Amino acid sequence: MLLETIEQANDIKKIKRDELPLLAQEIRDFLIRQISVTGGHLGSNLGAVELTMALHLALQLPEDKIIWDVGHQSYTHKILTGRRKEFGSLRQLHGLSGFPKRKESECDVFDTGHSSTSISAGLGLVRAREITGGNHTVVSVIGDGSLTGGMAYEALNNASKLETNFIIILNDNNMSISENVGGVSKYLNSIRTASGYLDLKKGIYNALLGTKRGDNMITRIRRAKSSFKQLVIPGMFFEDMGITYLGPVDGHDIGTMESVINDARRVEGPVLIHVLTQKGKGYRPAERHPARFHGAEPFDIETGIPAHPRTIANYTDVFSTVMCKLGQRDDRIVAITAAMPDGTGLKRFHNMYPERFFDVGIAEEHAVTFAAGLAAGGLKPIVAVYSSFLQRAYDQILHDVCIQNLPVVFAIDRAGLVGSDGETHQGIFDFTYLSGIPNMYICAPKNKWELSDMMKFAVGLGKSIAVRYPRGIAYAGLREYRAPIEPGKAEWIYRESGIALLAVGSMVKTAEEVRDALKEKGFGVSLINARFVKPIDEEAVEEACREHALIVTLEENVACGGYGEKVLDYMNRRNLQNRFLNISIPDAYVEHGNVELLKREIGIDQESIVKRICGMGMEEAHLRDGGKA
Amino acid sequence: MLLETIEQANDIKKIKRDELPLLAQEIRDFLIRQISVTGGHLGSNLGAVELTMALHLALQLPEDKIIWDVGHQSYTHKILTGRRKEFGSLRQLHGLSGFPKRKESECDVFDTGHSSTSISAGLGLVRAREITGGNHTVVSVIGDGSLTGGMAYEALNNASKLETNFIIILNDNNMSISENVGGVSKYLNSIRTASGYLDLKKGIYNALLGTKRGDNMITRIRRAKSSFKQLVIPGMFFEDMGITYLGPVDGHDIGTMESVINDARRVEGPVLIHVLTQKGKGYRPAERHPARFHGAEPFDIETGIPAHPRTIANYTDVFSTVMCKLGQRDDRIVAITAAMPDGTGLKRFHNMYPERFFDVGIAEEHAVTFAAGLAAGGLKPIVAVYSSFLQRAYDQILHDVCIQNLPVVFAIDRAGLVGSDGETHQGIFDFTYLSGIPNMYICAPKNKWELSDMMKFAVGLGKSIAVRYPRGIAYAGLREYRAPIEPGKAEWIYRESGIALLAVGSMVKTAEEVRDALKEKGFGVSLINARFVKPIDEEAVEEACREHALIVTLEENVACGGYGEKVLDYMNRRNLQNRFLNISIPDAYVEHGNVELLKREIGIDQESIVKRICGMGMEEAHLRDGGKA
Repeated sequence: MLLETIEQANDIKKIKRDELPLLAQEIRDFLIRQISVTGGHLGSNLGAVELTMALHLALQLPEDKIIWDVGHQSYTHKILTGRRKEFGSLRQLHGLSGFPKRKESECDVFDTGHSSTSISAGLGLVRAREITGGNHTVVSVIGDGSLTGGMAYEALNNASKLETNFIIILNDNNMSISENVGGVSKYLNSIRTASGYLDLKKGIYNALLGTKRGDNMITRIRRAKSSFKQLVIPGMFFEDMGITYLGPVDGHDIGTMESVINDARRVEGPVLIHVLTQKGKGYRPAERHPARFHGAEPFDIETGIPAHPRTIANYTDVFSTVMCKLGQRDDRIVAITAAMPDGTGLKRFHNMYPERFFDVGIAEEHAVTFAAGLAAGGLKPIVAVYSSFLQRAYDQILHDVCIQNLPVVFAIDRAGLVGSDGETHQGIFDFTYLSGIPNMYICAPKNKWELSDMMKFAVGLGKSIAVRYPRGIAYAGLREYRAPIEPGKAEWIYRESGIALLAVGSMVKTAEEVRDALKEKGFGVSLINARFVKPIDEEAVEEACREHALIVTLEENVACGGYGEKVLDYMNRRNLQNRFLNISIPDAYVEHGNVELLKREIGIDQESIVKRICGMGMEEAHLRDGGKA
Repeated sequence: MLLETIEQANDIKKIKRDELPLLAQEIRDFLIRQISVTGGHLGSNLGAVELTMALHLALQLPEDKIIWDVGHQSYTHKILTGRRKEFGSLRQLHGLSGFPKRKESECDVFDTGHSSTSISAGLGLVRAREITGGNHTVVSVIGDGSLTGGMAYEALNNASKLETNFIIILNDNNMSISENVGGVSKYLNSIRTASGYLDLKKGIYNALLGTKRGDNMITRIRRAKSSFKQLVIPGMFFEDMGITYLGPVDGHDIGTMESVINDARRVEGPVLIHVLTQKGKGYRPAERHPARFHGAEPFDIETGIPAHPRTIANYTDVFSTVMCKLGQRDDRIVAITAAMPDGTGLKRFHNMYPERFFDVGIAEEHAVTFAAGLAAGGLKPIVAVYSSFLQRAYDQILHDVCIQNLPVVFAIDRAGLVGSDGETHQGIFDFTYLSGIPNMYICAPKNKWELSDMMKFAVGLGKSIAVRYPRGIAYAGLREYRAPIEPGKAEWIYRESGIALLAVGSMVKTAEEVRDALKEKGFGVSLINARFVKPIDEEAVEEACREHALIVTLEENVACGGYGEKVLDYMNRRNLQNRFLNISIPDAYVEHGNVELLKREIGIDQESIVKRICGMGMEEAHLRDGGKA
């Protein structure tokens, strides 16, 4: 196995030229085998095997710097920098991350996870090189999907001023997570589909070799392609911004890419290499179903079918279903996604109401203000988005939606701990950043029926509101508790005295478990489903304080600005002196791993919570049903 | 006076054609006269007089919709829609806003304030029109500075898919608040400076008239300009994105603009009109000093000199000075601004260390991740930014800076109430959104010396840290209190027992006044300068609780996620039962007006605070010095 000779960075250079395709195949086989067991981002990694190899051949690591946009294509980079043996622990607690991590390797120069950051970060490294005086190469590798994010454009705009080398590799597979959208995508497509570019390639690079800044080459490209449909000159869009354009190049041809990268290093300024790759390359099921193999669960290699097919509905499915119903009921309902029609469950809505569905690409800022515009125009927009990605649009919610009190509904999926994607993707800040915003309603369902009820409530509210729910299986317990949703009203589930558990969303289930354990210890335990994080149900808190010695809030969010702090704040304002315990996520980033293990690790699982309640040193008599509050 | 005949929207259409230039002059005189008294955005409004008139001539309001990007150029629009008489109250409490406000007029269709939102909002209104079935015209007016914001690009990218009319007017004055930056700016400049475009104009629009989608015209433009330097084809950048380009047009020629707008309305798809205007047009001092007259204080019309010249240093001056010192001391210090070199006070640093200064344009997202890249490259970046604009980069702070614990210093100016710019510009959320972020340090100086000390401390800390300070005069009291800054440590200023005031930043001064009033009533009052909002000084809280019956926190931020909630949370965790009062900004947007009046309005002025403390119903004996805590 060639792969076994790769023990550390730059070992790839020892492989014979003619054996490189074999190494690519071994890497591909390794990736498929590993990911079929651990799960992970298969499609993007299979697409970037040769590109990564070419980079590692042309560059010297760790001196030269590669920034991987999003970072879910960095597996081959990890293999080539001595982390092959750790793939068994991929995305598992304390194991190898699925994204670049500085703390993992000095060959990872910048952590990524969200989209469109790599050019900004790369430009920072280039400027640092200029100031501190280095001569290493900086390369940002960005997908065509990430290029729809405004940040990437801001960075390109700034990169244009450079007078030293900065290589941007556009890894163009004509799709981000789902189908790509917009003018730029159409533009790239027009380059891709233009006939004859491959024939031109050699001539182009030969021409480049003879010039200082590649001007001759550019002229030749322009001349050669002047007859393109729509008068499109390849790369003119980038050239207009002051960035030298090279390409397009076959992203599965290692030798050509290596030599283009070497050519690009001679350009004294920003240079973009347009590389064409195929997502899922070399594994038929992934080539055919790129969306399914974007972030894959463990699967059977032979068939590509998930190893543990899901039989129980998750929250996304529930959302998907209720959206179709809502769309049928009211034709003013429109849905917006930022490149996540599958992930958010909006695909069915799209199929049923194509003219009321908008995929804006990876562009959360635009998505939210666009929704504000739709609302100002009399519609009822629902923005379906992952919690951690909505962070991108914080100002747009605060400034464009809520100042005007526009009726935009945010359906926030992947809220709370998300598991294997780790730090960058945990949805544990949304209560904080949304709660501080005036005019905002925030609620979270305890189970699948409540998500449905809350969505119906939300579109009827006529105000800015967020409904937040976790990744994964939709809780199907507590079905009989289905009191109508009222703004800012909580729901009493069990009513005793002693300890009151006020739980938000996913933590209602945990609170049930905590209650069972506490009951066994002989305590009296009430359970209140908070439903609303903003505004909180002050009456319920007041009642809880009247009847219970200990108030415990539970939420899957950091403490700061969360539900617990609001309850405590209210108790203080009313001078309610009950003991109070806030169960929430500690003030630290939470790494990747199984959600149940993570909960234990950070102390928000049943056992830890029970221990903390019992460890408060309260007199047991006060915690019994009928005990003195 | 023609101006007096304009009582409501569309009245401008009654003015005779040949009298329009006279009306423009009257509007200009009115604006100069009014703003010289009230202050306001002079330059941008003087530049947009004719453009606004042309829009009001071509469109029918309020049926047709105009969205003003940023909105600080909307004064003429306000005059032409019946709000002339309210200009005496411009930017004053309960008076006319300096920005478009839906609650002010049905001719204001979308509130703005921050940059680059207008195309997203406009696109929302267009889609709403398509779905609900209307035939009104939607126009987004965006400046060339706002076009450097990534959101604008995200929106353009999405607009390209439209098959119905949407007009984007690029109001190009070749500068945003200060000089414009980047490739797109250079590109626009290449169009602007190309000779002969004005001669071509008539031919172009005649050609357009004969076509459905303006294709012939585009061909003609392309052919006519093929000899441009750098092979730049005007508008090709926009055309590449699928947006029809018209222009450039003289933005002070009402008739031509009106006819181009009418032409543009016939395009079945997105169309961009490139209008060239001059900022400050018609008022010599504003033409000469555009940055100074961007947001002007009251001034003398004759000379352009401020009516009340500032003689006392403000916090921005203090920051400006310390930055120059820091830059001299350590050549790894670099400074970043997003189009605000004057406003943030970085201009002097720029002059002294041009190679270590970066103005990235209106692009806060990029600014922050770029800074993260600089830090990863071994430098010590300081991002100087206004509090409300940093909201744009929330995800970048959380995701690109703090996960990696990179030593980026955020110098957050205009934090707290900013006054006359109102809702969109109040910097009252930064403690909230920053506090929730792990690894983040947050501090705020009590006076000018402390700002200086904190900046020095911050660059030496080697971690992610925000220093936040308010707009306006730097407090020069409490000079003798200058204990060294230690991470997470507060400073005791007065130490008694009874009431403990724990104040943050600007509120230390208010707390002094509160203390004076309470002392007069015979209470014992300690004053603690919190210095750090994160982490809080737990020891100081503990001590305060030991010695005082009442703990009062004071901050110029909303309560949620702020300093007070952290103190209360700590008190609860330690089971400290002292009475607690949180003085902070109520959960509502704060409108424009004089800061002192606003503070009274929302109850964070001395008088209101004293009243609240006395109204807590505590036994007076406990609040006296030496009273039982």
